[in-house]
Amino acid sequence: MTFDIPRLTEITLDDLEPLGTGAGILGTGGGGNPRIGRLRLQTLLEDDRYPDAIELISPHDLSHDATVASVGGMGAPTISVEKLPKGDEDYNSLRAIEAFSGEDVDAIIPGEIGGANSMAPLCVAAMADLPVVDGDGMGRAFPELQMDTFFIYGSPVNYAATTDERGNQVVYKDIDSAKRLEDFARAITVEMGGRSGYAFPLMTGAFVAEYAIPHTVSLATELGHVIERARNGTVDPVVAGRELLGGTELFTGKVIDVHRRNRDGFAMGSVTLAELDGSSKLEIEFQNEFLIAQNDAGETLTTVPDLICLVDQDTAAPVMTDALRYGQRVRVLGVPAPELLTTPEALDVIGPESFGYDLSYKPLDRSNTGW
Amino acid sequence: MTFDIPRLTEITLDDLEPLGTGAGILGTGGGGNPRIGRLRLQTLLEDDRYPDAIELISPHDLSHDATVASVGGMGAPTISVEKLPKGDEDYNSLRAIEAFSGEDVDAIIPGEIGGANSMAPLCVAAMADLPVVDGDGMGRAFPELQMDTFFIYGSPVNYAATTDERGNQVVYKDIDSAKRLEDFARAITVEMGGRSGYAFPLMTGAFVAEYAIPHTVSLATELGHVIERARNGTVDPVVAGRELLGGTELFTGKVIDVHRRNRDGFAMGSVTLAELDGSSKLEIEFQNEFLIAQNDAGETLTTVPDLICLVDQDTAAPVMTDALRYGQRVRVLGVPAPELLTTPEALDVIGPESFGYDLSYKPLDRSNTGW
Repeated sequence: MTFDIPRLTEITLDDLEPLGTGAGILGTGGGGNPRIGRLRLQTLLEDDRYPDAIELISPHDLSHDATVASVGGMGAPTISVEKLPKGDEDYNSLRAIEAFSGEDVDAIIPGEIGGANSMAPLCVAAMADLPVVDGDGMGRAFPELQMDTFFIYGSPVNYAATTDERGNQVVYKDIDSAKRLEDFARAITVEMGGRSGYAFPLMTGAFVAEYAIPHTVSLATELGHVIERARNGTVDPVVAGRELLGGTELFTGKVIDVHRRNRDGFAMGSVTLAELDGSSKLEIEFQNEFLIAQNDAGETLTTVPDLICLVDQDTAAPVMTDALRYGQRVRVLGVPAPELLTTPEALDVIGPESFGYDLSYKPLDRSNTGW
Repeated sequence: MTFDIPRLTEITLDDLEPLGTGAGILGTGGGGNPRIGRLRLQTLLEDDRYPDAIELISPHDLSHDATVASVGGMGAPTISVEKLPKGDEDYNSLRAIEAFSGEDVDAIIPGEIGGANSMAPLCVAAMADLPVVDGDGMGRAFPELQMDTFFIYGSPVNYAATTDERGNQVVYKDIDSAKRLEDFARAITVEMGGRSGYAFPLMTGAFVAEYAIPHTVSLATELGHVIERARNGTVDPVVAGRELLGGTELFTGKVIDVHRRNRDGFAMGSVTLAELDGSSKLEIEFQNEFLIAQNDAGETLTTVPDLICLVDQDTAAPVMTDALRYGQRVRVLGVPAPELLTTPEALDVIGPESFGYDLSYKPLDRSNTGW
């Protein structure tokens, strides 16, 4: 299946706000706020020294032996709001793996389309004058890097780099598992003050064509455009978004309780929603991202890797876990995950059990989604 | 000044046990037990595929533009006793900085002569068929890498590598301070299971000639030989050791109390000694190494960076902080630190205040030492 959307060939200034909205929704409550990256990208596109638009290339149009790397930012979303990036960290990580591997990168791919890492790769592409692959490794957001399809489907962890705003470079070579790279890079990111730029791994165009979630940059942008048009028209923006993504609207109500705790650098917790007449409730557990939705009969409605997207009930603006507060009026979309996330090997890494829940994946009906 | 000792031109099988004894004493209670490294080095020297002896080169005989790197092991001593090295970690770190920097290393220098890192560089030298510089960066042991004279006296943190037994390589480039490298490499070492092999930084022969503590491999070996000869003769081994090193014998007594706590990966604590007739006491504070000695009138007798060396009262065998136990009969030597450790810039990094004590450095009388 595929989404019936325009396949973009470039990202221009006009796409930035819609992309931010779409990426925020696909971030399923996490992934970091795209706002700072969007402002940075706007500055770059308006600067004469950089291109006016970012070239997008379909994963299927990549040369088979092209060298592709995922580039972006790593760290707790709550930190990057306060500790703004200097701006060249992610770019320096790209240059670091190029220097250490001796290979030139031909195209950049977002590791996750959800949240801030929708924008970060585009900024690097502007600075390096490289195209961006229209796709990503998650189709949403996840908290750890081994949850990328690139690693799930066996990319070697050949080269990786993390850098900070001081120019410090830490390069990882021949790491024996993606989870180990996650542990190493996370520890360094903490020492770097909680936010680092990253680049990894080096992949071939053929591999990316097979294992990237395709056309998610176009999808996120179109999602934002659809919602924006609905806001300016007569269609309900939430319905417009749901019709594009597929899936179902799980709940409408207000936030009546939020539990949070920070554990091992993750924002853990749960949010309880109630219908306005108090007749029913929905509880959603999160670990950076929304993972599990249960009704007040204790029935599990939706589980990771399917997407649980909270949006403002009127504008369809994405609601992040760190912005949850009592009284918010929200609606909850349940969107089937991309098929590459639902295979047995994927569920081993990103199924409910891998997040510590004693639950099996309970797939949503896929009949109306493009994934 | 200089020590009146034979300048060795090589380390042979016969030197290994004496070197272990001498390095243990210079370890001032920390630095890790040299025993495992000694057995590994013995195996290498007995193996036909490796040299029969390790060539030693005086720092003053290095070519000015030679490339020298410090290579060894990083991690908590208590861990490396249980988690034995595979054997090629330190060597792989050397190869990693060579590969990433594009420079060939001409000679290896121990980062610290005290403890296990007396042996580790010799093992790498055997595997790489390289000479070892007769000197080191501490003249003793210290817990953190910025405490090396190389960094105190301004070596750039150009390249560094840590590796583990699985072949994972983490390389650090252009790190803005040695303390930052310590933080990065320590975090990775923890993720690597508590012990890593390291190599850093790349230095010129001219720099090493100026800032290494000279001839400490010879000194540690001669210290062990002197003590061994005394054990087989009529001289008191502790007196023999003290006469070689200089300084003073601070105390003789038994261990009557030990306090330990592990904090931030360091073995912190204190040991109280009492004379056998109970007439006086000595308390020594340690953070991996013995740092401060005070008598029971509260008077500070010796402070870091001067060496506080506990040895068995009869054999002069070194007593490590992690082996302290009630009833041990020990003697305490206070040995003046090498002059390179007592300058204002050095005391900023390794004086009592940098270990959190509200004390100034109180130097021992230097008149009888070769340092």
